[in-house]
Amino acid sequence: MKFKQMIEEASEANRSRIVLALDLKGGGLLERALKILRDVHEHVCCIKLNKHLVLPLGVRGIVELVFQAHDYHLPVIMDCKTSDIGSTNEVEVKAYFEAGFDAVTAMPLPGWTDGLEAVFKAARGEGKGVLLVTYMSHRGASELFEITVYNPELKVFEELYKVFSRKALSWGADGVVVGATRPNIIRSVKELVDEVPIFSPGAITQGGSVEEAIKAGASYVIVGRAICESSDPKAQAERVKALVKRS
Amino acid sequence: MKFKQMIEEASEANRSRIVLALDLKGGGLLERALKILRDVHEHVCCIKLNKHLVLPLGVRGIVELVFQAHDYHLPVIMDCKTSDIGSTNEVEVKAYFEAGFDAVTAMPLPGWTDGLEAVFKAARGEGKGVLLVTYMSHRGASELFEITVYNPELKVFEELYKVFSRKALSWGADGVVVGATRPNIIRSVKELVDEVPIFSPGAITQGGSVEEAIKAGASYVIVGRAICESSDPKAQAERVKALVKRS
Repeated sequence: MKFKQMIEEASEANRSRIVLALDLKGGGLLERALKILRDVHEHVCCIKLNKHLVLPLGVRGIVELVFQAHDYHLPVIMDCKTSDIGSTNEVEVKAYFEAGFDAVTAMPLPGWTDGLEAVFKAARGEGKGVLLVTYMSHRGASELFEITVYNPELKVFEELYKVFSRKALSWGADGVVVGATRPNIIRSVKELVDEVPIFSPGAITQGGSVEEAIKAGASYVIVGRAICESSDPKAQAERVKALVKRS
Repeated sequence: MKFKQMIEEASEANRSRIVLALDLKGGGLLERALKILRDVHEHVCCIKLNKHLVLPLGVRGIVELVFQAHDYHLPVIMDCKTSDIGSTNEVEVKAYFEAGFDAVTAMPLPGWTDGLEAVFKAARGEGKGVLLVTYMSHRGASELFEITVYNPELKVFEELYKVFSRKALSWGADGVVVGATRPNIIRSVKELVDEVPIFSPGAITQGGSVEEAIKAGASYVIVGRAICESSDPKAQAERVKALVKRS
């Protein structure tokens, strides 16, 4: 099943717009991650992994986690922020797709030819998703994502993230990533990417509001530490889901 | 010993400006990588690893390779192109530093505050290096690295890679990465970054010239497939080194 369909079905089934960022630190990573997944799987629509688990455990070491998520009918995103030349990007994303991941994130900076083209090609052949990061969630993101650039195609001056948003549309991205910390930027990206779903990280712990992000146009909100570091992840996931419950 | 000193000493000792990108595909990765390292170690000044080895073998799985390079007095760069928020960047680069890597590469896009600040802080505490990617080596790199931006600090219009080059200087990067495929860009970056060494990937297989890159201002040229995929890596490394031999 394609990533887009998987996440839509899981979102409807669990009535949730919450993507769980399973970012843990310390020992017993796999066991703790599996436990949180068991606890919260009915309240989220997708799982996102990052370097926190993949670096210590290796790609092979997290396969069990990906399988377990699939058993719960949840797709899994690898937030690798792919940023390299085409041949390296291909090695990277194929390793993740072979491990069972359903989507990857990519940074727009390498551009298309011999860069991200390889990511989209590898994904399309297998019904996998590519999410393009168009505006990050941390404070310093404004330093470069909001820099004024001259868009030579449209002959207008605009912020760099708008150029990235247009690329997401023309490259056929399955989603864009825009920080929940800036609802105004979500609104602005929403106008440019139309039906492409917006994924918003940075909610709660980083200061973003789950409700505001959805109101501004996000389809999914990514929540990590606020659930994973809670004393009761299950109850916390249920609370977070209820903030923006699907009818 | 600090990264900068390590690479300078190795470069002098081996009379080489060649950084070996140990990017292999297929089976028996660790054994083949160790063999190439044994064969070429006298002709290079540094080793660079990327996802090719780290994803299949895991961070722990390449520690032996890092140790072996250190036995040959060669520093090792992890070309992770770090691109995330600060807390994730910290997890990532600390994992590499703990595995023995002497430097990491980072993409400028996240900016400083709560972004790359964490990378530079983690590196500085341990004498590790940070190389900032200011212009990539593939064809499509021009799509965004050369986009015209308004530099609000200088009140001038210039290409995005120039903004990145200035950031490298102000952030205190230990090196910048500029593709060997564009000697004119190397010259232009060289004028902006002054004494910061330029590392140039994309030589030979990707079409860049080792001699032209050095002539244009690069301190080190990164060569991967042209050595690793050669039938005689040792002889090939010796030939490549001789192209730009240090006196």
